[in-house]
Amino acid sequence: MNEAQLKKLDQTVLGWLDTVHDTVLKRVTQRMRVDTKAGHRDLVTNVDRETEQFYVDAIRRFDPKAKILGEEGFGDAVNDMAGRVWFVDPIDGTMNFVKQQAEFATMLALYEDGQPVMAWIMDVVNHDIVHGGPAYGVYHNDTPLATPKDTGLADGLIILSGARLLYEQFGFPEVAKAALGFRVYGSAGISYLHVLTGKAVGYASNMKPWDYAAGTLLGEALGFKVGKIDDQPMNMLISGTVLVATQQAYSDIMAIERDL
Amino acid sequence: MNEAQLKKLDQTVLGWLDTVHDTVLKRVTQRMRVDTKAGHRDLVTNVDRETEQFYVDAIRRFDPKAKILGEEGFGDAVNDMAGRVWFVDPIDGTMNFVKQQAEFATMLALYEDGQPVMAWIMDVVNHDIVHGGPAYGVYHNDTPLATPKDTGLADGLIILSGARLLYEQFGFPEVAKAALGFRVYGSAGISYLHVLTGKAVGYASNMKPWDYAAGTLLGEALGFKVGKIDDQPMNMLISGTVLVATQQAYSDIMAIERDL
Repeated sequence: MNEAQLKKLDQTVLGWLDTVHDTVLKRVTQRMRVDTKAGHRDLVTNVDRETEQFYVDAIRRFDPKAKILGEEGFGDAVNDMAGRVWFVDPIDGTMNFVKQQAEFATMLALYEDGQPVMAWIMDVVNHDIVHGGPAYGVYHNDTPLATPKDTGLADGLIILSGARLLYEQFGFPEVAKAALGFRVYGSAGISYLHVLTGKAVGYASNMKPWDYAAGTLLGEALGFKVGKIDDQPMNMLISGTVLVATQQAYSDIMAIERDL
Repeated sequence: MNEAQLKKLDQTVLGWLDTVHDTVLKRVTQRMRVDTKAGHRDLVTNVDRETEQFYVDAIRRFDPKAKILGEEGFGDAVNDMAGRVWFVDPIDGTMNFVKQQAEFATMLALYEDGQPVMAWIMDVVNHDIVHGGPAYGVYHNDTPLATPKDTGLADGLIILSGARLLYEQFGFPEVAKAALGFRVYGSAGISYLHVLTGKAVGYASNMKPWDYAAGTLLGEALGFKVGKIDDQPMNMLISGTVLVATQQAYSDIMAIERDL
């Protein structure tokens, strides 16, 4: 896509995010229907479903030939990355959404023939958005973001999945101990926003494709390193424990992983 | 103090908080001097010191007979709770302040002859304030806060000190596993704000008096239960692992503690 097409794409999706911001903030004050999915900590609400349906309808109108991989299943069964593929996470951090009415995100990412095009992560309550891509540049709202300082693990904050840390998987406790400090926010999108804006040196969690697609695209476009913590190759359609970090913190963490 | 005196006290301190908000946000964009105290993770900046000096000067003018217990030592050596005692934490969550320029707090609490009078906790960046006391009521900015729903540990988020969790002290891992979810924010003030506004069912951390004085006062005024996790009596001048939680979550956590 040329610059004008990318600009139009960005403006279009930013318009959808405005709608989602307004709609979701209104819905928060109303009665919500909360259900569980894979377990009693895996929550989904009517707002997750309605928001995904909104995105799917909008994408179908804007980009009718694209395939859509959405968390709540309103999209398509996507088996490969051929053509244009949209990743949709309508409400990321649903537990925070239900319990805090804050600290949740909405995320979209577009890939074409497996190549990153553009992605969007919004802290919904604060209307705080990181968006862009490799050919377009990455913006924090209207401000261009630069590659952050290459801070190592010992000098920065690492954000971790609470469950992996608590159940001592993949060396998360050792990584936390080696860091200057660690934080647990309970939302991939909120965690990615911290990393992309230079507030943390990295983030690692076990994630589904819609959890990490936008953060991976934006992180790589900004010069962060992204990969699987088990050193397996990235596959955008498979769940796994994904790490995004500054180059130095990534090396520091993978050295810990190899010593486990 | 009568209602008019409490109102004047609250308005006066809210004015100080406005000044601190403006000053600290300006200082964030300037070069900061960062030193360490007890260890390389125990940070202090010139902004911590300047802010405490500002509060101490303001308190001396407003309440000249009071004693002041401040984190950075600009106050008095306070050996007992006789008379009026101010607790001052100028920048709570200094690591977040330095690394994130967000998610830090400023906290003040006033006790008279050991009895709670009034306290203030401000999320500095967001100018988000919980303030008040037992005779005055507790407010979230201008809105009166009510005693929150008595949610149990299994149905809510618990906020924990990262270090205690990581080093498996005081049953923090067991508490985290029993909760619906846990979060680590790295600032007592930010954590207390979550609990006081009903976003989490409790918070526990190893804290110094200036870390827990305001949260204890506001929590008790709102009907939360506050105590030491080792079941020792509270002493406002001694450090310890302090828990604030809904009545039900407090019982749930203390049952876990007794079973350790």
